[in-house]
Amino acid sequence: MSITPDQQAEIDALRATPRPTLRAVSEGMEKHLYTAIPVLDHGFIRVIDYMGDDAAITQAARVSYGKGTKAVQNDEGLIRYLMRHWHSTPFEMCEVKFHVKLPVFVARQWIRHRTANVNEYSARYSILDREFYIPEPDKLAAQSTVNNQGRGAVLQGEEAARVLEMLKADAGRSYDHYEEMLSQDGQDGLARELARMNLPANIYTQWYWKIDLHNLFHFLRLRADAHAQYEIRAYADAMCGVTKDWVPAAYAAFEDYRMGGVNLSAKGLECVKRMLAGEAVTQETSGMSKGEWREFEGMLGR
Amino acid sequence: MSITPDQQAEIDALRATPRPTLRAVSEGMEKHLYTAIPVLDHGFIRVIDYMGDDAAITQAARVSYGKGTKAVQNDEGLIRYLMRHWHSTPFEMCEVKFHVKLPVFVARQWIRHRTANVNEYSARYSILDREFYIPEPDKLAAQSTVNNQGRGAVLQGEEAARVLEMLKADAGRSYDHYEEMLSQDGQDGLARELARMNLPANIYTQWYWKIDLHNLFHFLRLRADAHAQYEIRAYADAMCGVTKDWVPAAYAAFEDYRMGGVNLSAKGLECVKRMLAGEAVTQETSGMSKGEWREFEGMLGR
Amino acid sequence: MSITPDQQAEIDALRATPRPTLRAVSEGMEKHLYTAIPVLDHGFIRVIDYMGDDAAITQAARVSYGKGTKAVQNDEGLIRYLMRHWHSTPFEMCEVKFHVKLPVFVARQWIRHRTANVNEYSARYSILDREFYIPEPDKLAAQSTVNNQGRGAVLQGEEAARVLEMLKADAGRSYDHYEEMLSQDGQDGLARELARMNLPANIYTQWYWKIDLHNLFHFLRLRADAHAQYEIRAYADAMCGVTKDWVPAAYAAFEDYRMGGVNLSAKGLECVKRMLAGEAVTQETSGMSKGEWREFEGMLGR
Amino acid sequence: MSITPDQQAEIDALRATPRPTLRAVSEGMEKHLYTAIPVLDHGFIRVIDYMGDDAAITQAARVSYGKGTKAVQNDEGLIRYLMRHWHSTPFEMCEVKFHVKLPVFVARQWIRHRTANVNEYSARYSILDREFYIPEPDKLAAQSTVNNQGRGAVLQGEEAARVLEMLKADAGRSYDHYEEMLSQDGQDGLARELARMNLPANIYTQWYWKIDLHNLFHFLRLRADAHAQYEIRAYADAMCGVTKDWVPAAYAAFEDYRMGGVNLSAKGLECVKRMLAGEAVTQETSGMSKGEWREFEGMLGR
Repeated sequence: MSITPDQQAEIDALRATPRPTLRAVSEGMEKHLYTAIPVLDHGFIRVIDYMGDDAAITQAARVSYGKGTKAVQNDEGLIRYLMRHWHSTPFEMCEVKFHVKLPVFVARQWIRHRTANVNEYSARYSILDREFYIPEPDKLAAQSTVNNQGRGAVLQGEEAARVLEMLKADAGRSYDHYEEMLSQDGQDGLARELARMNLPANIYTQWYWKIDLHNLFHFLRLRADAHAQYEIRAYADAMCGVTKDWVPAAYAAFEDYRMGGVNLSAKGLECVKRMLAGEAVTQETSGMSKGEWREFEGMLGR
Repeated sequence: MSITPDQQAEIDALRATPRPTLRAVSEGMEKHLYTAIPVLDHGFIRVIDYMGDDAAITQAARVSYGKGTKAVQNDEGLIRYLMRHWHSTPFEMCEVKFHVKLPVFVARQWIRHRTANVNEYSARYSILDREFYIPEPDKLAAQSTVNNQGRGAVLQGEEAARVLEMLKADAGRSYDHYEEMLSQDGQDGLARELARMNLPANIYTQWYWKIDLHNLFHFLRLRADAHAQYEIRAYADAMCGVTKDWVPAAYAAFEDYRMGGVNLSAKGLECVKRMLAGEAVTQETSGMSKGEWREFEGMLGR
Repeated sequence: MSITPDQQAEIDALRATPRPTLRAVSEGMEKHLYTAIPVLDHGFIRVIDYMGDDAAITQAARVSYGKGTKAVQNDEGLIRYLMRHWHSTPFEMCEVKFHVKLPVFVARQWIRHRTANVNEYSARYSILDREFYIPEPDKLAAQSTVNNQGRGAVLQGEEAARVLEMLKADAGRSYDHYEEMLSQDGQDGLARELARMNLPANIYTQWYWKIDLHNLFHFLRLRADAHAQYEIRAYADAMCGVTKDWVPAAYAAFEDYRMGGVNLSAKGLECVKRMLAGEAVTQETSGMSKGEWREFEGMLGR
Repeated sequence: MSITPDQQAEIDALRATPRPTLRAVSEGMEKHLYTAIPVLDHGFIRVIDYMGDDAAITQAARVSYGKGTKAVQNDEGLIRYLMRHWHSTPFEMCEVKFHVKLPVFVARQWIRHRTANVNEYSARYSILDREFYIPEPDKLAAQSTVNNQGRGAVLQGEEAARVLEMLKADAGRSYDHYEEMLSQDGQDGLARELARMNLPANIYTQWYWKIDLHNLFHFLRLRADAHAQYEIRAYADAMCGVTKDWVPAAYAAFEDYRMGGVNLSAKGLECVKRMLAGEAVTQETSGMSKGEWREFEGMLGR
């Protein structure tokens, strides 16, 4: 990772001076503030600010449900109830702001989550650093032969070497030319907003990204999933760790109902009922297509 | 206003125990936390939580613009620059959460601002209190004769008395019947989700409302405006005061560029230029309709 | 319902003059255009415009997935695949605009769905009609004794009669006073924006409501659900019928995967697996709370 | 531009078969449907679908304002009124769907407009074509010396030649290696989701982009502006032409109030008033900073 001594000094300074606040404080999150958690070869995530904790979720829910809520359930039970029944607004009452450094091709997937606030480093205004994502050898995977959108086995030997060599050489050469085009040494120098077009998608960018907890969970469900591309999943996994420390009860409910949970279709539910009643259901008698049946069997671990 | 002793004790307890945090702290906002600012006869706003301060705005902008930004401008100048050029994303990096108690007809206008998070007291689940907005005599205005959507002079004498009497009597009777319908004393009791339909739009509801600073400014520009209905403006005005203490530099820029600023159409700009060149422009030679010209003259204070 | 002869004449005129278009046309939706489908005692929904059809969903998906998509799957299979795997953006490519007349207390629930465009009749600007929702006798339900947010048995005899009498009398009296306050006959007349506060929540309002198909499905899943309040469910049910005619393949997938589908938590999935393996799982051995177990058993129809 | 014979045949087929509809039809928009308007060297925009026309805007406004609206104003006057007073919801009642082919670095700016629906070609799933944006010689501009985020004079002679040569060679080589990495000829072939990271930001991508008219106007105001980067402005300009044909009255109001209009700050307005009263205001007496004063003078064309 690329935390410079200057940046580390800034982080240390920010962490050295706690100040009193009357706001809700999450001890688990305070320990993460400002520190950079490395992701991939040059990337990181770090928490810049947060609002709320587990209690803020139940407090908001109790505004909705009035006094009755207080007696019936403890905080953890209420949070599980809210998650189970898709009462999403109380989770929206927590907010978090990350500083993220990530390759551009990961940023392009990430930004599709629209319900978030973003300030990205502007390559129109400033000059990007010479930092590129080059996969670790064990992440250099072949195209899947069964899934257009997936990976197969890890590349071996000469093929792997050739790929790494091409990635490195092209990145280096593109960046050399980027600098040459920008240079004002004996020439005018191309506009930054144009020169950047020569840079490949594995160059690193960075941004501030702010999102509420409900939408963060939605992001994590999709991007920490086994079907997500490894490079974005690495960021999502790091965020899962932080979120677990920030709002432990909400995160536990998220794990049980979302990450570990599954959706059963009406047909799937009907099949489960028949199977529990002792019937030997097959794809032919299930009413499902072959693809659905395969997924259904996978879900049941058969 | 209706802060019960219980609620006051809770506020006092929350304010009694500052805790250390590493996050950005706004001293101006800390002093408001949890305390209720009265609005109208039974309403209030109170700040429940916040994220960020003036420095968080420039910090986010500097992620975008890189190192160059640091040298050139101080924080206040940069904030004014961002506001002037509609760079809205750095303002989105601050967030605030209010607890608001307000009449239902105000809530109905308010909720049209969609980019916010809301948890409202549920009259489907719980029973509403007997609290109604009854305007102060000096707020009991006649229908405007020139503006379908505005107020004229204050009602006087018997007419004013009749109106107040009707508002009070109808509210009281509707609430009596609400209670009678709900009662399970010697009868089943109507469902809450049905009984509430008997209640008038001046009954009070409450909610948690969370919004980022950019969208809060948009709300305030529309709702603290002289053309907004007085009853929602009273809430917006109270929020303006809080926001000024929270992010003084951003609020000052907002006042200059948004609240006090105006939009000139292409035609209006052309007219200003001609007038500055000494021409006596009239509605006939302005290219504007009569309505536009009237508004244009009003803008220039003529 | 309250379609006036004037309105019917307008509908007839709009339906009398088909015009040629090159856009995608849904025959099933054309037959609904402009006509009012009655809901509750004075309400309705009617389709004002729409964009796209089933083919527009797959067309958008094929932009994403490229040429490969064409060969593999027919439209219906692709739509089911997209729905099953939560690929929501192709469904966002269809849009629909409704004109809805509905009681205010229903409108207050409805508006919580934020990802939609709305133009509501303004009681600040105009005068509302004397139309109130009065439930049919078989919809006059008691408060549920087991669910704070639900209905029990239908009220009977004198209690039902008293409730209906109160609802009607209060609505009528409030409206009489609304008119008296507004009247400019021998007095100034109260501002409309103030007089409206005397009106109860069962008065009818109306709006144009425009939404994309993905968000419409989300609305329908929540509001056509058995746990939704009957009065909003009546609108959602009417919309389900229209949507089925508009995009039959997407609606069929929605029914299977969303309306008829269920979510199994990680714990619930584990229990199903154990039960399929022959184990007699009980609440005690399930790892679930009593409430969860009850819902789990209900889901499996046990 | 790169419309293949196959694509042209598809466009011709789609345009050959008008079908009857009862929906609002915009004649000006029908003529654009499906046809590709070239932008840059390989890009285009084309209208895939639309909803509504000028009349749909006023129709929605009249739902809000009730009967009164009908008498007072004609459609054009009402549309100008709505635009002038920032009544944005009626404009949200129109919707348009474009198919856009554009370089990735333009797509990255574009996607920051969040209130839109997008389906982008997936380079995770499919293989991108060998098409790169190479600027026309008169668009090869130097970095501005006064504005970090702008262009200066056009590059000349050898410098221009060197830049073009680098852009072309790097694009070509990166794509050659992209193909070599993907190849399954005698090797496994790298996963598509990884190989794409070698491609530079001037490669073309494509997407379906759907947006309502209010948000389209917001996009056009920012991206058809003289300060926008030329390459995205070329797309915005093409969209302006289409929008003018689609909703001529709304577009005319947009031109007058937004594109051609300006914002005056409170201080700026005060200065205009003083100048109109005959005072010779200078930067020193204006209360503005030097930067603000320079922009203010520029606005007034002095």
